[in-house]
Amino acid sequence: MGKFLTKREEDYSQWYNELVIKADLAENSAVRGCMVIKPYGYAIWEKMRDALDKMFKDTGHVNAYFPLFIPKSFFSKEADHVEGFAKECAVVTHYRLKNGENGGIEVDPDAKLEEELIVRPTSETIIWNTYKNWIQSYRDLPILCNQWANVVRWEMRTRLFLRTAEFLWQEGHTAHATKEEAIAETRQMINVYADFAENFMAMPVIKGHKTANERFAGALDTLTIEALMQDGKALQSGTSHFLGQNFAKAFDVKFATKEGTEEYVWASSWGVSTRLMGALVMAHSDDNGLVLPPKLAPIQVVIVPIYKGDEQLALVREAGNAIMDELKAAGISVKFDDRDTHKPGWKFAEYELKGVPVRIALGARDLENGTMEIARRDTLEKNTYKREGVTEIIKNLLNDIQNNIFQKALKYRKEHTFTANNMDEFKEHIEKGGFVNAHWDGTTETELKIKEMTKATIRCIPIGNTQENGKCILTGKPSKERVLFAKAY
Amino acid sequence: MGKFLTKREEDYSQWYNELVIKADLAENSAVRGCMVIKPYGYAIWEKMRDALDKMFKDTGHVNAYFPLFIPKSFFSKEADHVEGFAKECAVVTHYRLKNGENGGIEVDPDAKLEEELIVRPTSETIIWNTYKNWIQSYRDLPILCNQWANVVRWEMRTRLFLRTAEFLWQEGHTAHATKEEAIAETRQMINVYADFAENFMAMPVIKGHKTANERFAGALDTLTIEALMQDGKALQSGTSHFLGQNFAKAFDVKFATKEGTEEYVWASSWGVSTRLMGALVMAHSDDNGLVLPPKLAPIQVVIVPIYKGDEQLALVREAGNAIMDELKAAGISVKFDDRDTHKPGWKFAEYELKGVPVRIALGARDLENGTMEIARRDTLEKNTYKREGVTEIIKNLLNDIQNNIFQKALKYRKEHTFTANNMDEFKEHIEKGGFVNAHWDGTTETELKIKEMTKATIRCIPIGNTQENGKCILTGKPSKERVLFAKAY
Repeated sequence: MGKFLTKREEDYSQWYNELVIKADLAENSAVRGCMVIKPYGYAIWEKMRDALDKMFKDTGHVNAYFPLFIPKSFFSKEADHVEGFAKECAVVTHYRLKNGENGGIEVDPDAKLEEELIVRPTSETIIWNTYKNWIQSYRDLPILCNQWANVVRWEMRTRLFLRTAEFLWQEGHTAHATKEEAIAETRQMINVYADFAENFMAMPVIKGHKTANERFAGALDTLTIEALMQDGKALQSGTSHFLGQNFAKAFDVKFATKEGTEEYVWASSWGVSTRLMGALVMAHSDDNGLVLPPKLAPIQVVIVPIYKGDEQLALVREAGNAIMDELKAAGISVKFDDRDTHKPGWKFAEYELKGVPVRIALGARDLENGTMEIARRDTLEKNTYKREGVTEIIKNLLNDIQNNIFQKALKYRKEHTFTANNMDEFKEHIEKGGFVNAHWDGTTETELKIKEMTKATIRCIPIGNTQENGKCILTGKPSKERVLFAKAY
Repeated sequence: MGKFLTKREEDYSQWYNELVIKADLAENSAVRGCMVIKPYGYAIWEKMRDALDKMFKDTGHVNAYFPLFIPKSFFSKEADHVEGFAKECAVVTHYRLKNGENGGIEVDPDAKLEEELIVRPTSETIIWNTYKNWIQSYRDLPILCNQWANVVRWEMRTRLFLRTAEFLWQEGHTAHATKEEAIAETRQMINVYADFAENFMAMPVIKGHKTANERFAGALDTLTIEALMQDGKALQSGTSHFLGQNFAKAFDVKFATKEGTEEYVWASSWGVSTRLMGALVMAHSDDNGLVLPPKLAPIQVVIVPIYKGDEQLALVREAGNAIMDELKAAGISVKFDDRDTHKPGWKFAEYELKGVPVRIALGARDLENGTMEIARRDTLEKNTYKREGVTEIIKNLLNDIQNNIFQKALKYRKEHTFTANNMDEFKEHIEKGGFVNAHWDGTTETELKIKEMTKATIRCIPIGNTQENGKCILTGKPSKERVLFAKAY
């Protein structure tokens, strides 16, 4: 272990990179751009996955599994889609190795595939090719499938969790009889994501539509949730796409309507990924390490014994185990760290680094007094409590921490959300960091020019946005609403 | 839907293929050898995964995630390992597509990887390369990691679940300070698998050692669980490998001992896959469809209303919902199928096909009499029960079914386990199907000759095998114990 070298103020980016590694969340692997998700990081991802999976099932979805590989020809079938993904595809061309002449091992040239296979960057094409066989009539609709899977996008500049060549995600793919139903599904799922982000990750998000330029390749509309990180940059945290009939047309998926006519099927797709791990780290953590929301913390409470000698240790251990049993019975995940290889101070720093929400220090004097010292990770406050009623105390504290870090992040976002009425104001705010609401003339050309000038992009056109007449900050052309800009990950 | 065309007696293999598809477990995809796991099949797999995952965690293991890709050079480092997997590897050679001249899309020759990447067929190499950085001293040991992942082995002849180019599995990879500890881990995990197979899948298994010839590529010892299918063929259902220091040496993973010396680390690895789905189907199902053990059935109870007209339907629906609520409160998964698009008889056949353990038929007369008709899937028996105490009745029935199908499979295995003292007896038993215990001289040569003559392989040398002097059935050479032969999947 060891404390950080870098503080957020000094170099936010470096702070993030160090934190992910030192807190044992993930590390770079021997394969360019691919990460190893370490047990502690994976335990957080499992909690995210389980919470999301329940929300998907509660909204009527089922899980399935589709192939890792996609025949190259499938990609060509939806023009925008291939345009969006072709430049970052891992391609399988052979299916066998053989012994080389110099004792090494080489690809067997005789084992070349007739058609190359793409490692899925997303699964619309293979899934819609499958749905073609599942859908004949309106009775077969809707199909509400989700899959938890790994995907590969050959990114050139990678960062742990935020942008990796391989990442884990879920992708929902739904098929509907009507446009309205598909749009309602798209909207429902962005609401599920927002609910998850705010209530589990304690991370406030803004829901909105992507501009045409930022849309998913093949979508008619992309909804997004956007969160603000502590360096004033936005992070796109989840997207839900209304795909219209694009993929149904590309894969010829029609259904017989109740009325006996034949129509193309309507589609949505939606996904969140291990990128959320990056968001979670950057939204809450501080210079001492991770700050985890209790609902996603693998260890919610750690008990550290303070003692001199074996006799005291035995007593403290007994008392610690009793507390642990009581908390576990209430469904709280708790670890009693009675290792004698490290001193309490070292352990305190370790669990701060790991973001454990509540720490209980228990010493010989506490046993005499019927007390315990409790430190909360979010505020670093320490207080002495009566031992009695520990379960209620901890439950309340965990709720409190969950709410507090959400409120803290919300406060940060409010303090970093600005309104700009011209380019000078805009540049000033973007420079400082944060969300900037500004009028825009609705063209991709202007959007790209602003990006070129300021590095800021349109994060979204918020759902339920106030309609007001104004002028584009760049061109002065008329605009009917402000859109949300920020620099982004 | 529709009943089977094929019965087990007629063509067992065809029966299996049809059942997997008609029961909506899986289907072949557009990608050669890769399957689509359909929602109903995936729901069973999820239950398997969750039960196993809990058993792994209860024995101290944690989950992590390692890259999908393995640099080609890693494979060459463990000689036996590369020998075992080289011939069935999917190889990534390029990382980009581009627009072709004739409007299509092609692999960009400028985007060739410097070193080819193998899509993992198993992860020992990439994981031991990672462990090298995790392990310095005895304090870092043991490492007890598991990963749930997809793997690819380019099989030429594939069958849904049993042998597919891509499959889902878990792979545990553990690192230990001593040989004894690594062996104990290997043994522990085969016991976990046997426990899971027998208590969740209701499938009796025999635990034993693989012969040198059938060992995992790179292992010093492979433990296996072997189950007998209803056609008298064995199915290897899970393996646990003692890897010695082979991978530690290949990747130079050493640790400082307590005594200050430096030693190579000891290893185990162990895995089960979606192949278990095939085992589950073949162990219990019948000519009417799946027979699922209640502990793994996505729907444990289905309620089918029997009615004439809307008025009766309303009453039966009310009563059905009340039963459903009561069962759900007891943690039983139940579906009330009040669709008016299908007749009761059709539904009965459908849920028999899907292997739902218990079916409740509820009609207008039942409401008057306070009764219900219950059919159990395993025996196809129907009985009328009092409505009162439905939860107890169903709970007992589910337990009963779980036990009964285990006992039935055990009885089948006992009736199909033989002893052979010479080649004639051996051939006769192998021909009929089943396990055959016979003496073998311990050489790979003899093992392969017997296989050539009879298609039977040595499934395992059972753990705790009776020691008795005898003569090899083929060579007459001395032998100290019988080994277990069978034809196998």
